[in-house]
Amino acid sequence: MKIAMVGLGKMGMNLTSNLVANGHEVVAYDIFEESVSKAVQRGAIRGKSLQDIVAKLETPRVVWMMVPAGDVTEKLVTELSSLLNAKDILIDGGNSNYKDTVRRAKQLEEQGIHFIDVGTSGGMEGARQGACTMIGGDKEAFQYTEKIFSDSCVENGYLYTGRSGSGHFLKMVHNGIEYGMMQAIGEGFDILDKSEFNYDYADVARLWNNGSVIRSWLMELMESAFSEDSNLDDIKGIVHSSGEGKWTVETALDLQVSAPVIALSLMMRNRSLESDTFSGKVVAALRNQFGGHSVETNDI
Amino acid sequence: MKIAMVGLGKMGMNLTSNLVANGHEVVAYDIFEESVSKAVQRGAIRGKSLQDIVAKLETPRVVWMMVPAGDVTEKLVTELSSLLNAKDILIDGGNSNYKDTVRRAKQLEEQGIHFIDVGTSGGMEGARQGACTMIGGDKEAFQYTEKIFSDSCVENGYLYTGRSGSGHFLKMVHNGIEYGMMQAIGEGFDILDKSEFNYDYADVARLWNNGSVIRSWLMELMESAFSEDSNLDDIKGIVHSSGEGKWTVETALDLQVSAPVIALSLMMRNRSLESDTFSGKVVAALRNQFGGHSVETNDI
Repeated sequence: MKIAMVGLGKMGMNLTSNLVANGHEVVAYDIFEESVSKAVQRGAIRGKSLQDIVAKLETPRVVWMMVPAGDVTEKLVTELSSLLNAKDILIDGGNSNYKDTVRRAKQLEEQGIHFIDVGTSGGMEGARQGACTMIGGDKEAFQYTEKIFSDSCVENGYLYTGRSGSGHFLKMVHNGIEYGMMQAIGEGFDILDKSEFNYDYADVARLWNNGSVIRSWLMELMESAFSEDSNLDDIKGIVHSSGEGKWTVETALDLQVSAPVIALSLMMRNRSLESDTFSGKVVAALRNQFGGHSVETNDI
Repeated sequence: MKIAMVGLGKMGMNLTSNLVANGHEVVAYDIFEESVSKAVQRGAIRGKSLQDIVAKLETPRVVWMMVPAGDVTEKLVTELSSLLNAKDILIDGGNSNYKDTVRRAKQLEEQGIHFIDVGTSGGMEGARQGACTMIGGDKEAFQYTEKIFSDSCVENGYLYTGRSGSGHFLKMVHNGIEYGMMQAIGEGFDILDKSEFNYDYADVARLWNNGSVIRSWLMELMESAFSEDSNLDDIKGIVHSSGEGKWTVETALDLQVSAPVIALSLMMRNRSLESDTFSGKVVAALRNQFGGHSVETNDI
């Protein structure tokens, strides 16, 4: 199948290589020309502009966007919607908020353009070797593009999940679960680290990946990380987040789901961004006020 | 190697079969004679009493206990310590609290008896087909018994973790992580369930096991559970716990580790045991008192 890939960052570039390796013709485009050249070296067809990639595709056109969620995606959808025609298929493979996806799908539907939302998991390696995708949108449009997914994903690694937004929603919840699992793993190793015993964490992670209940890809990644840096001395415990965890918590609040572990995983990430907190100052001040407990002061 | 297995419950019975299948001679004993007979059918040697199993072993004797943590283990250790001699090796494969293990090891050391603590993961299937074990205690005693572990565990599925207690401590933390991972998975599916979309949970779990970041044995178990009962209609969401999660949280408190996700996973289990809560009544009463918000009343 001939498709266009717009956005050649870590994920888009690897996905391009993946699709090319599977015999697809990929017209690659990015605002950075050197990324396009790199994609061309990997077997893609050079896309010079959005107009150019649209011109280079046959109808119904299939355009896969792999760009950051939010403004970048919004702008790109608007631009592409003015270039695409009815029956063309626009795929959003990024981590868009499902509410935006539902809105965009409705707007594009007015022009007869099919919008497919694809939640993509598996990281960079997955994008290159075989991803895991959660696919929402018009079912016929999905069926028309199914070979792209069956070829670029691991076996049983793609699922059509229903109407527009359901793919991105499922990916959002996937990431929420991921936050919780990661935080639980982090807390466990923290307890080992402060314990009276002396563990080799790479050995522990390797052990836990062989026959234990918590064996998992995340634990395999820890085995790899601890093998490279036995106490993670080179890494600061500062954890950013990119939206999906927050949306999962917001969604849990909207739906009145009790999801304290996912919520706290997000808040522990937020906490990790600050070396001191105003809440801590407030509590220390109160403790001092009523109990005369000493406070630690900043040097001035 | 000739060893005794004391305690032929789900874990001990499967472990006996496992060891017999691997060519070991297992003298099996349980307070329930029918369990002993079952073990004998599976190739074990009948143990008629603790005295009898001790008599049937060669020195240094190796006795593996697979009995419930707490009083049962305590009583059994006391009884066996009066029957065993210096250089004999006593293995506790149960989920004992590591503090008990440290104490017991010291007591037994006075008699020259080696005490090995083994945290065993992988469930019943693991015990039968290949477990994952975390092994603390005297290093020479471990080395003397190593073939038992290498034979009964999956490849790379056993680890000597250092001095007495370190095996049970590691298993405790493993279970704490397990609590957090399970709760995160539970919350995620709860959000899917209350969402506007309509997912087939068996399909979702299967998908997530193929290429996603959260692929794991726990997700495989969910794939299996949802395949049997697509919405878990037959199961109540009541979750008991058997100690290790609580000990993990207590240990985190002692060590001043911030472990909110593991702690809340435990508390959500506790919450699941009650159909109503006194804390809920208190908060509802307060809301009514200051804001006139209506309360829901029990029929009298």
